[in-house]
Amino acid sequence: MKTVEDYIRTIPDFPHEGIMFRDVTTLFADPRGFRIAIDQLLHPYAGMQIDKVVGLEARGFILGGAIAHQLSKGFVPIRKKGKLPARTIEQAYTLEYGEAVVEIHDDALQPGERVLIVDDLLATGGTAEAGIKLCEKLGAEVVGCAFIIDLPDLGGRAKLEGMNMDVHALCAYAGE
Amino acid sequence: MKTVEDYIRTIPDFPHEGIMFRDVTTLFADPRGFRIAIDQLLHPYAGMQIDKVVGLEARGFILGGAIAHQLSKGFVPIRKKGKLPARTIEQAYTLEYGEAVVEIHDDALQPGERVLIVDDLLATGGTAEAGIKLCEKLGAEVVGCAFIIDLPDLGGRAKLEGMNMDVHALCAYAGE
Repeated sequence: MKTVEDYIRTIPDFPHEGIMFRDVTTLFADPRGFRIAIDQLLHPYAGMQIDKVVGLEARGFILGGAIAHQLSKGFVPIRKKGKLPARTIEQAYTLEYGEAVVEIHDDALQPGERVLIVDDLLATGGTAEAGIKLCEKLGAEVVGCAFIIDLPDLGGRAKLEGMNMDVHALCAYAGE
Repeated sequence: MKTVEDYIRTIPDFPHEGIMFRDVTTLFADPRGFRIAIDQLLHPYAGMQIDKVVGLEARGFILGGAIAHQLSKGFVPIRKKGKLPARTIEQAYTLEYGEAVVEIHDDALQPGERVLIVDDLLATGGTAEAGIKLCEKLGAEVVGCAFIIDLPDLGGRAKLEGMNMDVHALCAYAGE
């Protein structure tokens, strides 16, 4: 049977030259691929208490919506600055050039709630680290971060594990 | 028992003065609210053949991911221009000021596939209309458009029904 990796398409030179972009839209568009991905993302957390699923904009919304529904839990978005309508807290993080800011509604998580963070890709880990900090600022406990793809050479896994974070990824591309 | 509307929060003057913004994040964050919403979005389509679920960026990704997983079908994103990595077709639509362009991968749907389009809000219907056109350009058949909220006074429902489209919304706010 095909694995998750078999459904991922590689687009050379996107968004700019020299980048091998791992395109998960072909995974999501395949009924078997999407189901396998969602099911496998959840396997490490079977039997664990998870109160909220937090998805990182935008592909993490697709995964997070599916996972929250599967678990019958609530979904909470972390968005780029300016997109959330109510009162937020924000967290800046470093990009290759400059920085970005992400936000969460300040009443989206309650102290002590156990949270699973999901996104499609773990690269440098900047967005995920910012997401963890936002959840923790609200007093929630992040029980894990689940990704489809890990690019370990970019240091994200090491960064998150250095924060004592449980990291789960379905596949990894090294050497890039 | 609470209804979907009971979980929706209204934020006055977002994104600009005079707009009563209907905030679905409080619906999504509540485990019962989110489950009721996803289940009710699907009720009209029970027993119908749906091959792909198409979600409109970005809140439609949360709903579309959940619905595709529920149905064990593939999920296809329609995104703002420039976000999709492979070859796309695009569709412009009119905004209050100026226009916007959305895209779909040109191999994301196959001719004859039956598609359900989902988003959180039906206002003027511009994005939904563009989404329908993109699906139809790829030869797919749109079996319905499902939304959490309908703002009928903004004309979206009338516009889509004028295209012979089946429109399903969980609640409506009139007089705005």
